[in-house]
Amino acid sequence: MDLGLSDHVRPLVEAVRRMVREEIAPLDAEFHGEVGRHPSGDRFALTARQIEILSDLKGRAQARGFWNFWLTDSDKGHGLSTVDYAYLAEEMGAVSLAPEIFNCNAPDTGNMEVLERYGTAPQKARWLPGLMAGERRSAYLMTEPGVASSDATQISLKCERQGEDYVLNGEKYWATGAGDPRCTLFIVMACTEPDAPKHARHTMLLVPADSAGIEKIRPMQVFGHDDAPHGHMHIRFTDVRVRQDAVVLGEGRGFEVAQGRLGPGRIHHCMRAIGRAEYALELMCKRALAREAFGKPLAELGANYDIIANARIEIEMTRLLCLKAAWMMDHAGVRAAQPWISKIKVQAPLMALKVVDEAMQIHGATGLSQDTPLAAIYTDLRTLRLADGPDAVHRRQVARAELRKYSNLGR
Amino acid sequence: MDLGLSDHVRPLVEAVRRMVREEIAPLDAEFHGEVGRHPSGDRFALTARQIEILSDLKGRAQARGFWNFWLTDSDKGHGLSTVDYAYLAEEMGAVSLAPEIFNCNAPDTGNMEVLERYGTAPQKARWLPGLMAGERRSAYLMTEPGVASSDATQISLKCERQGEDYVLNGEKYWATGAGDPRCTLFIVMACTEPDAPKHARHTMLLVPADSAGIEKIRPMQVFGHDDAPHGHMHIRFTDVRVRQDAVVLGEGRGFEVAQGRLGPGRIHHCMRAIGRAEYALELMCKRALAREAFGKPLAELGANYDIIANARIEIEMTRLLCLKAAWMMDHAGVRAAQPWISKIKVQAPLMALKVVDEAMQIHGATGLSQDTPLAAIYTDLRTLRLADGPDAVHRRQVARAELRKYSNLGR
Amino acid sequence: MDLGLSDHVRPLVEAVRRMVREEIAPLDAEFHGEVGRHPSGDRFALTARQIEILSDLKGRAQARGFWNFWLTDSDKGHGLSTVDYAYLAEEMGAVSLAPEIFNCNAPDTGNMEVLERYGTAPQKARWLPGLMAGERRSAYLMTEPGVASSDATQISLKCERQGEDYVLNGEKYWATGAGDPRCTLFIVMACTEPDAPKHARHTMLLVPADSAGIEKIRPMQVFGHDDAPHGHMHIRFTDVRVRQDAVVLGEGRGFEVAQGRLGPGRIHHCMRAIGRAEYALELMCKRALAREAFGKPLAELGANYDIIANARIEIEMTRLLCLKAAWMMDHAGVRAAQPWISKIKVQAPLMALKVVDEAMQIHGATGLSQDTPLAAIYTDLRTLRLADGPDAVHRRQVARAELRKYSNLGR
Amino acid sequence: MDLGLSDHVRPLVEAVRRMVREEIAPLDAEFHGEVGRHPSGDRFALTARQIEILSDLKGRAQARGFWNFWLTDSDKGHGLSTVDYAYLAEEMGAVSLAPEIFNCNAPDTGNMEVLERYGTAPQKARWLPGLMAGERRSAYLMTEPGVASSDATQISLKCERQGEDYVLNGEKYWATGAGDPRCTLFIVMACTEPDAPKHARHTMLLVPADSAGIEKIRPMQVFGHDDAPHGHMHIRFTDVRVRQDAVVLGEGRGFEVAQGRLGPGRIHHCMRAIGRAEYALELMCKRALAREAFGKPLAELGANYDIIANARIEIEMTRLLCLKAAWMMDHAGVRAAQPWISKIKVQAPLMALKVVDEAMQIHGATGLSQDTPLAAIYTDLRTLRLADGPDAVHRRQVARAELRKYSNLGR
Repeated sequence: MDLGLSDHVRPLVEAVRRMVREEIAPLDAEFHGEVGRHPSGDRFALTARQIEILSDLKGRAQARGFWNFWLTDSDKGHGLSTVDYAYLAEEMGAVSLAPEIFNCNAPDTGNMEVLERYGTAPQKARWLPGLMAGERRSAYLMTEPGVASSDATQISLKCERQGEDYVLNGEKYWATGAGDPRCTLFIVMACTEPDAPKHARHTMLLVPADSAGIEKIRPMQVFGHDDAPHGHMHIRFTDVRVRQDAVVLGEGRGFEVAQGRLGPGRIHHCMRAIGRAEYALELMCKRALAREAFGKPLAELGANYDIIANARIEIEMTRLLCLKAAWMMDHAGVRAAQPWISKIKVQAPLMALKVVDEAMQIHGATGLSQDTPLAAIYTDLRTLRLADGPDAVHRRQVARAELRKYSNLGR
Repeated sequence: MDLGLSDHVRPLVEAVRRMVREEIAPLDAEFHGEVGRHPSGDRFALTARQIEILSDLKGRAQARGFWNFWLTDSDKGHGLSTVDYAYLAEEMGAVSLAPEIFNCNAPDTGNMEVLERYGTAPQKARWLPGLMAGERRSAYLMTEPGVASSDATQISLKCERQGEDYVLNGEKYWATGAGDPRCTLFIVMACTEPDAPKHARHTMLLVPADSAGIEKIRPMQVFGHDDAPHGHMHIRFTDVRVRQDAVVLGEGRGFEVAQGRLGPGRIHHCMRAIGRAEYALELMCKRALAREAFGKPLAELGANYDIIANARIEIEMTRLLCLKAAWMMDHAGVRAAQPWISKIKVQAPLMALKVVDEAMQIHGATGLSQDTPLAAIYTDLRTLRLADGPDAVHRRQVARAELRKYSNLGR
Repeated sequence: MDLGLSDHVRPLVEAVRRMVREEIAPLDAEFHGEVGRHPSGDRFALTARQIEILSDLKGRAQARGFWNFWLTDSDKGHGLSTVDYAYLAEEMGAVSLAPEIFNCNAPDTGNMEVLERYGTAPQKARWLPGLMAGERRSAYLMTEPGVASSDATQISLKCERQGEDYVLNGEKYWATGAGDPRCTLFIVMACTEPDAPKHARHTMLLVPADSAGIEKIRPMQVFGHDDAPHGHMHIRFTDVRVRQDAVVLGEGRGFEVAQGRLGPGRIHHCMRAIGRAEYALELMCKRALAREAFGKPLAELGANYDIIANARIEIEMTRLLCLKAAWMMDHAGVRAAQPWISKIKVQAPLMALKVVDEAMQIHGATGLSQDTPLAAIYTDLRTLRLADGPDAVHRRQVARAELRKYSNLGR
Repeated sequence: MDLGLSDHVRPLVEAVRRMVREEIAPLDAEFHGEVGRHPSGDRFALTARQIEILSDLKGRAQARGFWNFWLTDSDKGHGLSTVDYAYLAEEMGAVSLAPEIFNCNAPDTGNMEVLERYGTAPQKARWLPGLMAGERRSAYLMTEPGVASSDATQISLKCERQGEDYVLNGEKYWATGAGDPRCTLFIVMACTEPDAPKHARHTMLLVPADSAGIEKIRPMQVFGHDDAPHGHMHIRFTDVRVRQDAVVLGEGRGFEVAQGRLGPGRIHHCMRAIGRAEYALELMCKRALAREAFGKPLAELGANYDIIANARIEIEMTRLLCLKAAWMMDHAGVRAAQPWISKIKVQAPLMALKVVDEAMQIHGATGLSQDTPLAAIYTDLRTLRLADGPDAVHRRQVARAELRKYSNLGR
């Protein structure tokens, strides 16, 4: 069970780390500062400067071959294992703009995987090239306002057969990335057979973002932010028509697609969370050394030694757990990796939030302000305790897997 | 040690509760939604509608005599004890706009207390009427960007005697309320004698907000928000001149004023935090009952019974602790109440944050969004772990008081 | 809501405190050290020295009128309120031998209350005098080995009518105090009507400890200790016969008696737990000041300031919560006090265990050894998280009470 | 970084697991039940049955070649890596008697390592054969009653040169294993040069346990237990004489020996703790499934799903962290492994205690009693938070290592 960084991949990780820290990080604040400055006043329209920043950085990444690392098993990609990719995800996680620069950002990686794995040749031909090139974006429309999406069997966006077409009616929200003007594809989970067995009711569809009848009602806010230009959109479907060839894998097989999609994405999220925790710990230590009170550096006051030590211990353990989940994905497959992914899905965001919170606290009010990236990191991490299933659902999975060793309960 | 709500005050608390919930709460979102809509584009300029909301609600509060409750010992006020006021603060805390409606909002109450307690007759005559009438606002300028203000002896804004005048140079930030266009008074802690003994170096000054040489550099952001129109301003002083009659209590007595000011204000903050925790628990229970997954209400899933029970237990304990601190203030004075205030200053925000965080979690992504007030409450509470001294400083006070029972250590 | 120590009761509390600390504490270790020294080798037989210690100390307590404080409402006792008694219980809790010296130890106080409140005149006449005089002991037999007694409706010791008699068959364990040779009365919950509605199945019976057919199988151990000479006995009933006049309150009313019994007893347990936490904090502070490492007293190392501060905060909050539960018992009755008792039942032992654990840790290995009372206190407190209902059951009660405010769920 | 169980070692681990569970576990309670039954009444004298159990089981282990696994790098042993051994330690940790059966118990393994690594040929010849054969036992005498041994520079047992001899005077306690009648060797850290630089004051000596002037004062108790026949002895040295050839490595080099000794031992302790946590989780799940209340298995009540899931997550993370520390020991050496060992030294016992505590709680009172091994496991684990350095000292090491990345502080 080799969880280490291979000699083969180490130089790549180091090069990516340098590019993230030296080339992307300095432009991150500027990119986000541009939001709202488009002449139209539309916060979701990219400004000329934003386009320039993206194009310049992406160009450099592509030129160096730092592109589409997530294509783990494919000879189109780097042939990286999930473990290898995990180390890269950690580095890319430190700066919010970084994943897109390498065409490795959510939800596009997951969506591209869906197309790669389950798409027909024409589906691939239509949607993949733009996404693989980083020119188009995509969104994944699962969550709905009316039901607890932790229990995905409740998903209810109506999808009816009318002749050759499917007609969609209903609402989705928290469609991350759907605010981006470059987003052209919505992958939509819809309910085709409400009376079928629970896991055969739903179908996954490829819906062009500009289809007639699609209306973006509003961006959902996270701690008051619209996360423009990315966005988490609330979307209404009114008699939206797609052809039969929009179906992924087959009618009633939506759950199968959803399950296959979620594994690697959750590992990426968790490793990026670890990257953020590492960054917060670095800021915490530097502040603890630089700032004085009562005649001593903060490091030597209060419980700060313990706080720093606990952060280090928690980070190391969580990284190892994520690497093991990645290793399971590589060596035992998605199904066997599932309980491991549930474990990290609970653990990584909680751990990272704790470390970031302590880092904020040691910075005093500065830690909550625009003078550090900590508050923005915090709110971003906070969503991870809910995205792709809330903690409670994943703990439930872990507990049931445990109890199944001794009984039929929970099968 | 009567910590209960007296029969005398109960009807007042109930009437205030009704007004907060029925009259103020429905306008809270609208008031904050107006931010940024002033024709000038200035987020800190009050719009006509904001002025109307404030004036209408304040008018009603005044007409009913619900005004300046904080004037605890004065016959100008309601003659309420700190314990009585604590119950009112809890009710006012549930909605962010409420405290100002009753002229009971921070930092004005603390500032008015400074004037009441330490002001000369001319100082009172100049500044109090506008504040007591709720027509003017004030700010308290303590924190500085360059030093850890947890150790207030480091405060360094320079204040030099030049003839009859004092001349101020330096920077302050996190000047809460200083963004408000109605804010006319800054109470400023400045360093007059850097070489004096630690607690005799500083002087408290009453500085008109429109003095020449005062420049508002920027609003500090809390989790990305400028908290307009209230604001936490970063302010530069360049050769700002005030007369000798601007000094409160006397040169070198700044610490004494600061200590006297902080006691009641911290109790108010803590009781408002409890009001918010109660509100979050209410939302949590309602959601737990209304939302279903896996065929059951959320209440019956996961650890939700335990989460709800722990929230209730923690709220009750913390409220009792705050009431005891208030009772100490009433019956044993500020100095004896000090370690009790440190206790609640650590406990109340931490407890409330935990409850709000659990409430967010049970709401799913909705809990982080604009569809509930929870995220805004969370960020507001988060600042309380730093405002008026970070947790670590207050724990230090509590520990030293404990150890002093057995030794001279820490005296 | 006066939660204070009244001027009337303060001198009593102070006198009891002195007697506990100065007269009882010095003999506590000797008393327990006698266990196993009886010539018979029987650890549950009292040695001559044990009898002498008890008789001497009890004599002094009685002579001073420090006796049966728990008789809260009766003119036979001190006429103390539950709040008053709570302060006394805290003092008595600091030393393990103390409660018995004042005839205030569990389970006898609860058992005497059952007799006082629900007993017939002949029942009182037979059993109360010896108990009130501190000459006899009693046990309360509820828990059974075969069922989860957290759900008391499962209690199954069989009790059948045969003519004028009841005949009991089955097993009970964790019968605290039943090991004591002076224990003459067992109050037994038995199942008389297994098919009746859940809360009407059981009957409470007064069973002489020396009845034919009663067999003490073994003492249950707590962390390896038999807690001699008190003991927690495992008892078998084989055709044990009692007369109809053994029934308390009436057939099928066992639950009613059990509910009435448990309220005050739980408050006493919790206040004693607080007395122990206070004692542990005192030891912690003294050790932190006396011991040095790396050239400093331990107090100034690691997170010890925070640990001490948190202990102080937690103790104060928990004490206030217990006092409020006691006040509810005094002013609103057992039923209204019930959710408050559930709150303290969860909170007080958990809090005290945490404080004691930290106190052990700061003492190093000494903290686990016979050189401090901490480990013995820890194991004793640990049982309180299970006795009279495990934490989970009480949290469930608190949560259901909370949810009932908004729905019929859980009624 | 291969942290897996190699194909080479897997069969060994499985065979050891079977022997522990099927052959040793059934005799564990009997062995400990024999304590105190020696005709002499001496709890530390081995009874005939104890000798028989040991000799039988050890014979079987030796016959199968399951012996001295700890000899990691030597061709005298199995040539196991530290990682390999870690997996074995986990299996041996589940049952308290098991490590000795394989001659892998503390403190003997550490002591044998000292002899192996630092001993002269004559020292090895004298002491190693008996220990390697499992016929003799040894103790390591470090801790002293008068000083905080967390700061080992304070160790003060006096060792003076008198001619060819060293003369020792002072006290040691918590000498684990020194109670065993087969214990013939004490490795003693003594202060030879109190005025030398801090880390050059002490010398490590090999002292025959039966030397004149050595007196066993008492066994230290852990939660009231003397841990016979192993024991943690309090020992007095009065003019105890040893020859110069008793010195290990050289005068003043005691710290060097102590550091070299502690690394692997701590890893073994931690992996055994994980074995115990796994065992406790197994018991927890089985109880949760087997016991019912309120008409449901306990598993489905309260927060039990979350408790089980968190236990599983924590165990996995902690195991991985221990394996990484072991891997560091194998691949980067003791010094580089040091901060990793500090991390697991904090984490593993805390985690295991939490899991065992939850397992006790779900068992109700049974969990604290003689009817499960949980309470004994708890007290044993509790000592690990102090043995070989308390948590606070290891957190300090971790924090300083972290801060050193950014400054000279703490060097």
